[in-house]
Amino acid sequence: MQDDSLKRHAPAGTQDYLPAACRHKRSLEAVLRGVFERAGYDEIETPVFEHYDVFTHDAVPYVQEEIVKFFDRQGRILALRPDVTGPIARMSATKLLPSPEPLRLFYMGNVYGLRRPGEQVESAQAGVELIGADGTYADAETVALAIESLRSLGLESFSIEIGQVAYFRGLLAGTDLSERQREQIRHLINDKNSVELEYTLSRLQLSGQTKQALLELPGLFGGAEALDRASGDSDMCREALDNLRSVLKVLEAYGMTSYISVDLGLLHDFQYYSGLIFRGLASDIGRPVLSGGRYDGLLGEFGCEAPATGFAIRLTRLMRALGMESEPAERPLMLRFEADEAGQAAALARRLRSRGRRVVLAGPQAPADALDWNGPEIEELLC
Amino acid sequence: MQDDSLKRHAPAGTQDYLPAACRHKRSLEAVLRGVFERAGYDEIETPVFEHYDVFTHDAVPYVQEEIVKFFDRQGRILALRPDVTGPIARMSATKLLPSPEPLRLFYMGNVYGLRRPGEQVESAQAGVELIGADGTYADAETVALAIESLRSLGLESFSIEIGQVAYFRGLLAGTDLSERQREQIRHLINDKNSVELEYTLSRLQLSGQTKQALLELPGLFGGAEALDRASGDSDMCREALDNLRSVLKVLEAYGMTSYISVDLGLLHDFQYYSGLIFRGLASDIGRPVLSGGRYDGLLGEFGCEAPATGFAIRLTRLMRALGMESEPAERPLMLRFEADEAGQAAALARRLRSRGRRVVLAGPQAPADALDWNGPEIEELLC
Repeated sequence: MQDDSLKRHAPAGTQDYLPAACRHKRSLEAVLRGVFERAGYDEIETPVFEHYDVFTHDAVPYVQEEIVKFFDRQGRILALRPDVTGPIARMSATKLLPSPEPLRLFYMGNVYGLRRPGEQVESAQAGVELIGADGTYADAETVALAIESLRSLGLESFSIEIGQVAYFRGLLAGTDLSERQREQIRHLINDKNSVELEYTLSRLQLSGQTKQALLELPGLFGGAEALDRASGDSDMCREALDNLRSVLKVLEAYGMTSYISVDLGLLHDFQYYSGLIFRGLASDIGRPVLSGGRYDGLLGEFGCEAPATGFAIRLTRLMRALGMESEPAERPLMLRFEADEAGQAAALARRLRSRGRRVVLAGPQAPADALDWNGPEIEELLC
Repeated sequence: MQDDSLKRHAPAGTQDYLPAACRHKRSLEAVLRGVFERAGYDEIETPVFEHYDVFTHDAVPYVQEEIVKFFDRQGRILALRPDVTGPIARMSATKLLPSPEPLRLFYMGNVYGLRRPGEQVESAQAGVELIGADGTYADAETVALAIESLRSLGLESFSIEIGQVAYFRGLLAGTDLSERQREQIRHLINDKNSVELEYTLSRLQLSGQTKQALLELPGLFGGAEALDRASGDSDMCREALDNLRSVLKVLEAYGMTSYISVDLGLLHDFQYYSGLIFRGLASDIGRPVLSGGRYDGLLGEFGCEAPATGFAIRLTRLMRALGMESEPAERPLMLRFEADEAGQAAALARRLRSRGRRVVLAGPQAPADALDWNGPEIEELLC
């Protein structure tokens, strides 16, 4: 039996946007929509839930216990989307590819996860996906767009940390570690837990050089010069470093160096990232407000191989960081009129609204601060 | 075990909005947002799911089997919202009321229901709620706004049917019919199933006058003169007819008579309607694209009594009726440049974007129709 008072509350981990907060959210969305569109991206929308399989294949290790699942009438398992990248990959692979040129798509929408108490269960995101393009300029494009987005939102102080998961993959390529061991190492490096990392690596049969290169990883952050301290020298490692260096060079030319730091130990939660990855940190918030990267393996899961990269902005988190709401909207003009004046009052309301005024036809029982439809104040408004 | 090909499809009853369709949807939303705002309504947003109790109390007899339910981490039942009126009532009663003046709220969002194959499971709606106001001008305001909304969307031919459920309630007030019998009669009248209605009424112990008035109901439609043929004469019936007549008179003064017809047999699916109700029919679509009415009993379910009325537009259905998609967006300008020109190309892109152009920094490997950043075509664009 459910607690009767529950129905008086929005579910834990969700929020209502009252008028001022909703205006704030719409204004942020409008800013981002403008930035994304002018960068050549087109908006799309997918359903809020998908067949569960969209989120269960090898390339996308979401935390399965956190995914909200339910059944359709035929008993198939559906899932509220934990991100929008998966649904866009599904849609692009089946409806938009092959395409003579790269797809540039963006979205605004909610994502879902049954997270710990106090965490968001429903969160608003806005993001872009660049599908069908790889190389230096594609990688630089999404990072530059991420910076431009955060800047346009009015974030005063933020940084973008850039990593390259292919360097880490390159270090492990020659080993026979199990998937679970790799995941454990990735996790420790991502958490910069050097003590536990050293202890774990010592128990595994790794060559001295590989072990050394892995141990360096949590410390390989800072400016571009951090890359020079990376000792991994397999082809895959070198290609990863070359990619990162050339992207940084383009971003420098774009005038964006001041926002950027490098972190080779950055190894996000999603295993599907395959190359350059990045995240955005606002100085006042402990957790990332933006994350993204290259995920060349995902589209193939839906039947059409294609390189891809993109990022998502965590709008709900960011709104808390920006910490302000819009001013309440302008109070509508209340028009008072008698029953036999309704036609004239309605014509007046149409005129005022066509000039962008907010007008309520309040009738004879209008509130005290209403204006008479044929009063002097209205005359003035129409001048 | 699930069919592997499922993940390549959006779930049945949902749809992807590819760029042209999404642009169309955004443009309809923008039109409605403008109409609602200029009529004095403020946008709000609520979560896509609620505690199930929001949709199970006496005042809101949704079809419970159609509601999508799942559990949160604490085992509480959550439900994807079957409408937005319930969540807004919950939010208003607990966060916005009491209020010195009526609340005028609007929303754009999806609603959910596990409907029959071929029907929408996820549907987009846009709607308004006017909370804390009753009487002629409040009822007329929402009907007029409904008409203005459909007109602004470019629907060429539509009508608004207006009914008054209090008249029907007034007819039954003196009887001792069970809830189930009332519901059965309501259903037959709403379906204009006169044959079955006569058969059903004959079996029940009703006075001749009540029976006669109920049998009239499916035929009481047309112009305002249809009301003169209504024989129910209890206080409640007379008040309902007076309300309807005075609202029609105001709407006539507003110049909206040509869109309106009366139907006293209109008794929508939701039992919570308490007074004037209405729905919008587009001439090309068999099912309503808009429905609404007065629901004075709902807010009290959430702890704060208040009269209320509103309507919802079924955007998904309407988009099919309008039957057109926007043109694809203007193709972005692709800028070709060499590596050592990246800074100048980026500065150029910023200038073009600030003028509203869509620009991609494509780099040296740009597509064939790209423009050189320092070519003559660009010079022209900047003039």
